[in-house]
Amino acid sequence: MEHNDLLNYSGALLIRDVLVNGEKGDIFIDETGTIAGCGEGIAGIHRGEAEVSINGKGSIAMPGLVNTHTHAAMTLLRGYADDMVLQDWLTQKIWPLEAHLRGGDVYWGTKLACLEMIKSGTTTFNDMYFFMEDAARAVDEAGIRAVLSHGFIDLNLPEKRETECRATEKLVKTIKSMGNRRIRAAVGPHAIYTVSPEGLKWCAEYAASENIGIHIHLSETEKEVQDCISQYGKRPSYHLDECGILTPSTVAAHCCWLDEDECALMGKRNVNISHNPSSNMKLATHRAMPYHWLKSAGANVCLGTDGCASNNSLDMLEEVKTAALLQKFFWNDPTVLPAPEALAMAGTNGAQALMTGAGTLTVGAPADIILISTQTACNTPLHNQTSNLVYACCGASVNTTICNGHVLMHERHVLNEEDILRSSAEAAIQLVRRSQS
Amino acid sequence: MEHNDLLNYSGALLIRDVLVNGEKGDIFIDETGTIAGCGEGIAGIHRGEAEVSINGKGSIAMPGLVNTHTHAAMTLLRGYADDMVLQDWLTQKIWPLEAHLRGGDVYWGTKLACLEMIKSGTTTFNDMYFFMEDAARAVDEAGIRAVLSHGFIDLNLPEKRETECRATEKLVKTIKSMGNRRIRAAVGPHAIYTVSPEGLKWCAEYAASENIGIHIHLSETEKEVQDCISQYGKRPSYHLDECGILTPSTVAAHCCWLDEDECALMGKRNVNISHNPSSNMKLATHRAMPYHWLKSAGANVCLGTDGCASNNSLDMLEEVKTAALLQKFFWNDPTVLPAPEALAMAGTNGAQALMTGAGTLTVGAPADIILISTQTACNTPLHNQTSNLVYACCGASVNTTICNGHVLMHERHVLNEEDILRSSAEAAIQLVRRSQS
Repeated sequence: MEHNDLLNYSGALLIRDVLVNGEKGDIFIDETGTIAGCGEGIAGIHRGEAEVSINGKGSIAMPGLVNTHTHAAMTLLRGYADDMVLQDWLTQKIWPLEAHLRGGDVYWGTKLACLEMIKSGTTTFNDMYFFMEDAARAVDEAGIRAVLSHGFIDLNLPEKRETECRATEKLVKTIKSMGNRRIRAAVGPHAIYTVSPEGLKWCAEYAASENIGIHIHLSETEKEVQDCISQYGKRPSYHLDECGILTPSTVAAHCCWLDEDECALMGKRNVNISHNPSSNMKLATHRAMPYHWLKSAGANVCLGTDGCASNNSLDMLEEVKTAALLQKFFWNDPTVLPAPEALAMAGTNGAQALMTGAGTLTVGAPADIILISTQTACNTPLHNQTSNLVYACCGASVNTTICNGHVLMHERHVLNEEDILRSSAEAAIQLVRRSQS
Repeated sequence: MEHNDLLNYSGALLIRDVLVNGEKGDIFIDETGTIAGCGEGIAGIHRGEAEVSINGKGSIAMPGLVNTHTHAAMTLLRGYADDMVLQDWLTQKIWPLEAHLRGGDVYWGTKLACLEMIKSGTTTFNDMYFFMEDAARAVDEAGIRAVLSHGFIDLNLPEKRETECRATEKLVKTIKSMGNRRIRAAVGPHAIYTVSPEGLKWCAEYAASENIGIHIHLSETEKEVQDCISQYGKRPSYHLDECGILTPSTVAAHCCWLDEDECALMGKRNVNISHNPSSNMKLATHRAMPYHWLKSAGANVCLGTDGCASNNSLDMLEEVKTAALLQKFFWNDPTVLPAPEALAMAGTNGAQALMTGAGTLTVGAPADIILISTQTACNTPLHNQTSNLVYACCGASVNTTICNGHVLMHERHVLNEEDILRSSAEAAIQLVRRSQS
């Protein structure tokens, strides 16, 4: 079967000869995109039911990766400004360019991001940005899963707050009306320093009323913590908790500067934490998210890349290595965040945070599956599959990406790759041109 | 032309349509493997002189990457033991396995390492390990450059010192007798805590007499510094300097715990420093090499991956990102080690340290060249080529690897890849089996 035929195929699918949880086996995906069989002998049992099969040739099969914090359309800003102090970087470079953003840019930026994610094994992402209806359209076409939120920023201005509430409601309605089970809305209060307490409370209540998640930045920098203490007399987590933001459907990104008591609160509230090590290192937050405290507290710790202006990649297998290295280095203990826990952060835990039902290769789960060849240097030798995935492989090691039972990449081929690269590059050029005219 | 024909080709070579230092141009390589033309219009001038040409299709051309500190054959130990405290890791896992190493293992481990390096754009490496005659054979076949040293460890025992001196001399003679300009010997005193002052002095004198380099570990851990002060009353750099080890032909790996005065000494002695950020993070050295002090002092700072037991990858483009991130994070300044300096560490500076004459795309330099496609997500958009190479691309972004004018990889194809993967995997299995019997 030609690559494009497989990429356009819709129906039951058999994946033969893969390593599932370390054992040789096959995976059968039914026509609803659900895993209907998994393990040894499955090919024999389901052979007649699938029109199409993929020969895994002994590849490692694992759940698709889940990027729990990004700003997908910022791919257009990749490499636009680096190696600068945070405030200069934002005020002199990023914000002036973003002021010229249009919906079409977000569409192409998100298309590029989805392409990059598919090519590096990510099947679900948690996004916060602007013009999110355009992002939703891009995700719909790309075939992966996303939770999309409008970046709610009211700057303590009542009028702006109203605008942000309406924008949030509009996005939620639009996404619900799409009726695409891969795409869900969340509420996206940007951070405590950009959203008023009233805005935060509205977000919490609206999220509860719509039964959707919350996506927020938290304790990224020491300044955020100090300013919060000055302004509200308490550390950021307590302020958020008072506003009702800390829930089991909340993803809090960064969390570099949480203290031990705040970690306990995160565990108590069952908050999902998105660790973003590359971004934190590049922007010199100077402290790593306290994984060991969060783990002890029972918080669900996940992984995210952040946007391409501050990483500048969406490669989750690269990010998982950076996470495992940073935790060991900063907390001065080579036993912190061992490979199995790091890999869980990048997949299973993220799926749990975003409630996709995927994140596991078991019967009944949505078929979000990636295949990684063992016939590569990064998997040679294969003393330990998990160690290789975390410390030696990268996104380019992923050969096949399947989301909801659809093959989105096969042997590194993705539909319309050249078109997406060309059009998104052109959008980036035009964006910069507009900002300079 | 078929891939294998190109990979077996020997003679003048034309590379058309590439970006050289940001400008469109071509590169002409003469039959001695030297760059004989570089820039706009070169294809027209030299068209008749090359039997074979490569269409770069607008790829970025840059000097091959230089890995200035590794233990190549440790690819066989990739994933064998991770997430452990350094001393347990060494004494319970790594050393017991290494005790069973044979020359054939080092040959296959080095073959695998060379394959991995070619596939990620590295054309030169600086190696220290055992059975190095076997490593030399592997490098000879692989077609890349290497500086090879026997890991000299005398543990303060005069008898063992004699053995190590003879082993070092034997390797140097063997390599010189090979007459392969790609392969050179160095002297490899392992570290101050494994080599006596007498051993260090012998190494310094022997290296000077043979006009070859020195490769040593330095100040990797705080313990090494404290022990040195206890034993010799001074910090490690001064001890090494008294033994004559600090020279312009010396590569000192790690250097995490140098203080500012030691950095000044490194600059004064023109020592080459190999930064190994992934290994340092994974093993929790808890301090990053002080790049800003070394830079101020004028030391030549390069990059290395360390061996695959402690990284676990030889991907220099991954390592260069880790270096740029770690420096910013640890030294709490996002402007430290900007992308152009980071990329120079990975190529130009390494070539200077190992005196290959390469590391630059200019007429007269050996043709160690890699091509990186711009038609990829990591290079889209292309606001800043250097930023993309450092922060967004990885080794798998390299399409073509050329060393000394020979094409070692073309469109990701390398000669005998499957054989090397199979045989090295088998060597790793047999090594573990021997250690357990």
